[in-house]
Amino acid sequence: MIACAAELFAREGFENVGMSRLADAVGISKAGVYHYFRAKREILDTIVVTTLDGLMESVAAATDDVNSPRDRLTAFMTAHAAYFEANYWAFTAMLVGFGGLGSRATREAVVEQRDRYEGLLRQILQEGVDSGDFRAVHIPTASRAALSMLNWMARWFDPSGPERATEIAARYAELLLDGLGRRPTDTVPPRAHPASRETRRASRRAEARLEA
Amino acid sequence: MIACAAELFAREGFENVGMSRLADAVGISKAGVYHYFRAKREILDTIVVTTLDGLMESVAAATDDVNSPRDRLTAFMTAHAAYFEANYWAFTAMLVGFGGLGSRATREAVVEQRDRYEGLLRQILQEGVDSGDFRAVHIPTASRAALSMLNWMARWFDPSGPERATEIAARYAELLLDGLGRRPTDTVPPRAHPASRETRRASRRAEARLEA
Repeated sequence: MIACAAELFAREGFENVGMSRLADAVGISKAGVYHYFRAKREILDTIVVTTLDGLMESVAAATDDVNSPRDRLTAFMTAHAAYFEANYWAFTAMLVGFGGLGSRATREAVVEQRDRYEGLLRQILQEGVDSGDFRAVHIPTASRAALSMLNWMARWFDPSGPERATEIAARYAELLLDGLGRRPTDTVPPRAHPASRETRRASRRAEARLEA
Repeated sequence: MIACAAELFAREGFENVGMSRLADAVGISKAGVYHYFRAKREILDTIVVTTLDGLMESVAAATDDVNSPRDRLTAFMTAHAAYFEANYWAFTAMLVGFGGLGSRATREAVVEQRDRYEGLLRQILQEGVDSGDFRAVHIPTASRAALSMLNWMARWFDPSGPERATEIAARYAELLLDGLGRRPTDTVPPRAHPASRETRRASRRAEARLEA
């Protein structure tokens, strides 16, 4: 029932799915749903708490046996993506459909879960800084950057598309580790392309005139 | 009315705000609202289309006169954040409250706006790769990474908090450009901290036992 509710909430929006619709989809009576949950909100609460618990467990296990900070960060990001894809509807219901949680106790539990999860990532980053593998970056910024990339996937990732979420996460991790900027040790020297910028700017001006 | 509707949608969720609630908040009659918009959905459509238009215009202007690819990427990200903060409620209504757009025409217009916007960012990245300032990264990944960081701000940024969105975006840009990984030219040498990992793991095991 939880899996079915998650898919409905994610596809149709939490507010748009009534208890009757849910009962129909699961194939039980409305009274049957109320036997397990007093309110629709409780179902979403259960989805969120279970999903965050599973995420923490799964990502902690995946990073525990990994040694270098680089590999640990990559393991964190790909394990998160793997869990996201395996629990796609629950994840999406949690991150997309979601207008505040039901009870105060649930809200507090979720904040605590989220903080523990972000704590794991910050620890990985801090260890990398301490060991000298990472630059002395601003840990909250780096942690937020990684989680933003991962969380935003709930808004655009297509589970039936050609790419696996773990492949995307591995590329994100590499980008975050190595950066966009060319390094002094890289072989190809920088060269200037002033013409291409002028062309681009002229073409945008022309486009703007056409639209005006 | 648009600004007022945006704040209501963002705060209370699009599905939870009725036309009467909206009319009350604006201080006009329900008939007055219907004079301008046939349906609530049209108001959200207007918010989304106007916000994306303003974002494109504002970010294109901010990046146009900037020369190096590094500075252009930073200008893109901070201009996005400045626009986001100046149009906080419209942005948040667009990115958070949002369960699909009304008309097919609007959906197509929005997809086109989004593609043009992402096109601007990809062009900045491509120019940096062409000029040799950036590594030959996977452009769609890098573009998506930057937009994820910026878009996810709608989920956690607090406009009344101590930090400006532009400061956060500038740190994101720096992180994306320079990467986490220490560079060979950096001065402090890496050192290993095997003890800290063992300590951490032991403490997590102890914590798990306490919770079980």
